[in-house]
Amino acid sequence: MDNFIIKDENAVYFETNYSCDNVIFLAIGEKGYFITDGRYEVEAKENIKNHKYEIEILISHNLIRTARTILKKNEKISLIYNPQEFSVYEFEKLSSDLKINFMPKPNFHQEKRIRKTQDEINLIEYSQKLNIKAFDKFAKWIDKKGKNQSEAFLHFKSQSFLSKKGQYDLSFNPIVGINGNAAKPHALPSSDILQKGDLLLFDAGIKYKRYCSDRTRTGYFSKDGFNFAKKQTFKDKELQKIYDIVLKAQENAIKNAKAGMLACEIDALARSVIEKAGYGKYFVHSTGHGIGLDIHELPIISPRSKTIIEEGMVFSIEPGIYIPQKYGVRIEDLVVIEQNGARILGE
Amino acid sequence: MDNFIIKDENAVYFETNYSCDNVIFLAIGEKGYFITDGRYEVEAKENIKNHKYEIEILISHNLIRTARTILKKNEKISLIYNPQEFSVYEFEKLSSDLKINFMPKPNFHQEKRIRKTQDEINLIEYSQKLNIKAFDKFAKWIDKKGKNQSEAFLHFKSQSFLSKKGQYDLSFNPIVGINGNAAKPHALPSSDILQKGDLLLFDAGIKYKRYCSDRTRTGYFSKDGFNFAKKQTFKDKELQKIYDIVLKAQENAIKNAKAGMLACEIDALARSVIEKAGYGKYFVHSTGHGIGLDIHELPIISPRSKTIIEEGMVFSIEPGIYIPQKYGVRIEDLVVIEQNGARILGE
Repeated sequence: MDNFIIKDENAVYFETNYSCDNVIFLAIGEKGYFITDGRYEVEAKENIKNHKYEIEILISHNLIRTARTILKKNEKISLIYNPQEFSVYEFEKLSSDLKINFMPKPNFHQEKRIRKTQDEINLIEYSQKLNIKAFDKFAKWIDKKGKNQSEAFLHFKSQSFLSKKGQYDLSFNPIVGINGNAAKPHALPSSDILQKGDLLLFDAGIKYKRYCSDRTRTGYFSKDGFNFAKKQTFKDKELQKIYDIVLKAQENAIKNAKAGMLACEIDALARSVIEKAGYGKYFVHSTGHGIGLDIHELPIISPRSKTIIEEGMVFSIEPGIYIPQKYGVRIEDLVVIEQNGARILGE
Repeated sequence: MDNFIIKDENAVYFETNYSCDNVIFLAIGEKGYFITDGRYEVEAKENIKNHKYEIEILISHNLIRTARTILKKNEKISLIYNPQEFSVYEFEKLSSDLKINFMPKPNFHQEKRIRKTQDEINLIEYSQKLNIKAFDKFAKWIDKKGKNQSEAFLHFKSQSFLSKKGQYDLSFNPIVGINGNAAKPHALPSSDILQKGDLLLFDAGIKYKRYCSDRTRTGYFSKDGFNFAKKQTFKDKELQKIYDIVLKAQENAIKNAKAGMLACEIDALARSVIEKAGYGKYFVHSTGHGIGLDIHELPIISPRSKTIIEEGMVFSIEPGIYIPQKYGVRIEDLVVIEQNGARILGE
C-alpha cells in the first residue's frame, strides 16, 4: 500500500470511520497513526475501526510535531501528500530536514474515493431523500406563507426545513434567489421581497451520517401557488422557453450518460442542447460535480474533464441559464452510474 | 510601504473596503491590485475605496496566474506573505521561477490590525449589543419554553435569535451545552434534554458589517426560571463555588487589565484566581483572544504571550472551569483597552 499523510476531516473519516476538526492521519505500510488532541480522545477510541490498518491513536498538543516524530522513525520512505491540503507554514514545519521522499499529488484522496461503495451510495441516496422532503415542505410553506417574505428570511426559513429544526447539518449554505438574484450563481440572500409572478431558485443539501446531498429546483410563484416540480408553467414566454431548454438539457444528460464515456462528453450532452438553442454563453459553469463526504468531489463534469466515467460514480447534473438582472434557471439532480446508465438518486 | 500579497477575505476587506470569497490583493509601492472573478466585478467597482493605494481591479479566471503576471513586471522586489494563508500548491504556482524575494511572515496582517480604530471599536461594540439582545431573547424563550427541549433544538433555536431570523450572519457556530456537555470546550450539540436543575452554557456571536461579537454566559435553569445574568444561584454547592470562582477570575482580569501590561499578565489575572482556589488544572484554555473582522485575532491572552497590551486593542476575557462529565462554567465579555483600563463592550 502507498504511504500517505492527510489532515482533511472527511479524508480521515473515510480511512478510519472517525474524524474531527483537528487531526492528522499517517498511513505507513500496514500501520495507521491517528493524531489528535485531548478533546477527541474518548470518541476516537470508541469509533475508530481498523479494517485496513493497525491504527494507533496518539494524543498531542502539536499534531505536526508528533507526525514528524513518527516520520523520523521511518526515514527514506516515500510519502504521498496533497499540496492543496497543507499550508506552506505547516508543510515547512512537517518536512524540514526530514529524509522523507514527499510526493505531491493534488486530490489523491478524492481520486481514491471517486467510485462509491454500495453503502456509500445508500447513504448519499438517503441524504437526498431527506433533502427532497425538505424541498417539499419548504415549497408548501412558500405556497401558504411565502408572499411578501424577504429573500433573507426565505433563506433563514429554508434551513429550518433542511436541518429538520437542528437534527441535520447542511452540506452547504443554501442558495435562495428571486428573479435576477437567481442569475448570480452563488448569490447571498438580499432584502428583495417574494411576490406573485416571481421566479425562485433554491439550491440546497444536507448531510446524513456525513454524506452530502445536493439539489436545485426553480419554481414559479403563480396565482395558483408554488411548488418545486420539474414541470413549471411561467407567464413570461421567454422564461418558459429558457426553463424548458434547461430541463431538456438536464434530461438529455441523465438519459444518455453511461459508464465508459468521458466526463466532457456528459457535459456536452447538456451543453449542446443549450448551445443549439442559442443560450450557450449564459451557461457559465460546469454541468456537474462528484459528491460524497465532500460536497464537491470528483469527477468534475466539465468541458475539459477527460475522466472516464465508471459504475459507482455519483455526481450532480445541473445545467443552468442565467440572464443577468432578469432571471436564472438551474435544475439539479444527483445520479449514480449503474450498468444501464445513470439513475437519479432519491426519487 | 511594505509590499505584500494577501488572499484572506477579511484581510482584503481591511485594505480595500470590499471583499469576496475568491480574491487576491497585491500591494506594490503605492499601487494595489484587486484580482477576482467575473461574479464580483460590479460589486468590486462599486465598493472599493482607494484611501491608501491606487487600486486596479483585475478580472481573471485564474487569480494566481494573474498575480504572477503582475509580479513578473515587478521583479526583484521583496514581497511579504503569510505562509499559513497559502497552500503548498498555490504558493508553488505563484512563486516558481519568479525573481521575487518572498518574505514569509506568519500573521503579519493580523498584527497590522491588532489596534482597532474608533470606527472599528464602534462596529464591534454594536455587534456585541445586538448579540446581547439575542442572548436576552434566547434566555426569555428558554425560561418559557426551554424545558424538555434537546440541546440540538436549543442550538437550532438560538440561531433564530442570533441571526434575527436571517438578518445577521453568525461569527461562529454557537455552542449550547447542558451540564457535562458544557465541560467540552467546543461541544457539538447532543440529543440531551434540558430539565429544571440543569446548567446551560451558551457561547455565541454575530457579525455586524463584517465585525464579530462573542460572548458566553452560563445559566441555571431553576424552578424560578432562567436567565443569562452574571449572578447565578445554583442548588449544587460545589457548582456555586466553581461559578463564583470563574466570575471572580473574570472580573479580576477586567478590573485590572491595563495598557502596558504583557498579555500573559492579563492571563495571570484570571488564572491566578482559579489556581489559588485549586481548580487550575480544570482551566484548560487561554483567557482570551483578539476579535475584529476575524473571530480570532491578535492579541492572544495566554500564559505564554509576550504581546504588550496597548490602547485600542479589543479582546475577550473568558476564563472557565470544566469538570469532565459533570459541568462546565465559562463567562466571557469583550473589552477594549482605553486610557483608564479595560472597558466592557456593549453594556
